Amino acid sequence: MERLTGRPLHPFLRRGIFFSHRDLHEILALYESGTKFYLYTGRGPSSDALHLGHMIPFLFTQYLQEAFQVPCVIQLTDDEKFLFSKDNNKKLEDYQRLGWENAKDILAVGFDVERTFIFRNTDYIHSMYPNILKIQKAVTYNQAKAIFGFDDSDNIGKHGFPAVQAAPSFSSSFPQLFGSQSNLPCLIPCAIDQDPYFRMTRDVAPKLGYRKPALIHSKFFPALQGENTKMSASVANTAIYVSDTAKQLKTKVNKYAFSGGGATIEEHQKHGGNCDIDISYKYLSFFLQDDQELERIRQDYSSGKMLTGEIKAKLIQLPIK
Amino acid sequence: MERLTGRPLHPFLRRGIFFSHRDLHEILALYESGTKFYLYTGRGPSSDALHLGHMIPFLFTQYLQEAFQVPCVIQLTDDEKFLFSKDNNKKLEDYQRLGWENAKDILAVGFDVERTFIFRNTDYIHSMYPNILKIQKAVTYNQAKAIFGFDDSDNIGKHGFPAVQAAPSFSSSFPQLFGSQSNLPCLIPCAIDQDPYFRMTRDVAPKLGYRKPALIHSKFFPALQGENTKMSASVANTAIYVSDTAKQLKTKVNKYAFSGGGATIEEHQKHGGNCDIDISYKYLSFFLQDDQELERIRQDYSSGKMLTGEIKAKLIQLPIK
Repeated sequence: MERLTGRPLHPFLRRGIFFSHRDLHEILALYESGTKFYLYTGRGPSSDALHLGHMIPFLFTQYLQEAFQVPCVIQLTDDEKFLFSKDNNKKLEDYQRLGWENAKDILAVGFDVERTFIFRNTDYIHSMYPNILKIQKAVTYNQAKAIFGFDDSDNIGKHGFPAVQAAPSFSSSFPQLFGSQSNLPCLIPCAIDQDPYFRMTRDVAPKLGYRKPALIHSKFFPALQGENTKMSASVANTAIYVSDTAKQLKTKVNKYAFSGGGATIEEHQKHGGNCDIDISYKYLSFFLQDDQELERIRQDYSSGKMLTGEIKAKLIQLPIK
Repeated sequence: MERLTGRPLHPFLRRGIFFSHRDLHEILALYESGTKFYLYTGRGPSSDALHLGHMIPFLFTQYLQEAFQVPCVIQLTDDEKFLFSKDNNKKLEDYQRLGWENAKDILAVGFDVERTFIFRNTDYIHSMYPNILKIQKAVTYNQAKAIFGFDDSDNIGKHGFPAVQAAPSFSSSFPQLFGSQSNLPCLIPCAIDQDPYFRMTRDVAPKLGYRKPALIHSKFFPALQGENTKMSASVANTAIYVSDTAKQLKTKVNKYAFSGGGATIEEHQKHGGNCDIDISYKYLSFFLQDDQELERIRQDYSSGKMLTGEIKAKLIQLPIK
């Protein structure tokens, strides 16, 4: 990738944050032989603002767009969030509004305005509909149940939804962008939990005469409360939001970021901190660009030279880009 | 209805061909008090041409439109026919083409061009999509299974489809037609086999804050082969198509129209024909406008005065309008 783009690898790649892929080598080989690809990523708009975990695929997709100079499509699944929400007070219109709000945060990452198409499904269903129908016809409910764990008390919209997320993997869903190039290669950067959708998409592709999309997956981004906890959009203190003020950020990190440091200063200086479980270190390992500084922090914190308050301060001061 | 419109009842009403309804009196009461309704009917485009049975709801809807001077929307479910077809050689594009062809036959019935909106779902899904999602969210798979007999080996597009047929029952699916009048009363003339879709629609309506659509149902139209046989779009000789030539029509009626007449002329003249099972008489009872002539034919045929060849000739010469 460095050779093809003349750019250093993104820290997400150097550090294994994007840690697995499907057919990435094919996309690169095609690119080398002169066939451009397009990028596809997305978001389910469930909260007013995005948190740090949400930003990872977008930051990385923007990097890929800039490095390869390729088009990018971004799907906002307001329809999905409405169909899957258990909150009966929330209306479709609420998810449409969240999609609109989220689009601003996503574009702020620095996508190329000339090469990026961001859309809410409720605004763009029409052009995708033929592909959605073709995908739906190629997947039985038994298969979808095995992949997504649906059950019979689910509403009837959920069952067909995976086809809506699959459709942008095929360039013919974007006639206004790609014209007659109906089988352009597609690369999907996404969090690993989205892989089931795209395994289904890859199974279906040959039946429709389409190319399988390639994938590159990012690993799980932990909640402030620790490595094996999950961020929840409905519990504000489990995550750092892009809309948090400097003061909120400081409070959240100091109060909630799980520490791998010693229980007392004396103990910490004696045994050092545990970077494997320390959330401040973990977040820095995602977002601190400078490899040498990260390594220095790791050593100082592990040896006890850097205190818990100090590593938290590093995170609080970190610009995310 | 005669009093409201100043027109004689359509033969379909006088003869009980439209034989049952849901809330029709409410539509008429609203109309009388100055609230106009709109008409909604449709077709699944599965064949190049429509047969006589298909024409019944359209002929009747056109009559209602003219009598009440109201708007009419006509849905062509190319998506449904694709999702439900077992013929894997037929593509989505084939059903789109059939939709286009069928639209011509339907409009030829004489709909008011200023007041009629006919659309294929693959062209018009966008404006209906918010209502489709809201309907889907209000119906569980268990409910849909009980109504439509789905099973788990069905493709995942089928389960959500009933919401696509339901959506035009709500005037907010047509913002370009009805603007801010988002809760106009709707009357759906349809064949009785479509009732399950609209029972579901009527169950869902109050949950969405919408008015239940009213319905008026036509009875089963038999195949040429006899009262309890079903017309099949794939077996050309079971039905008379609007595209049949005069020669094809003559051959079909003479060769295939099930006769209730006697086995020989002598027997026929002695015992008479049986109008209850005679397809020529049955078809005349749908389409012959003149009540007195129909009654004369019934008497003459029943008494044996009119021969089988003669009643068939009546049907062959009948203009359908």
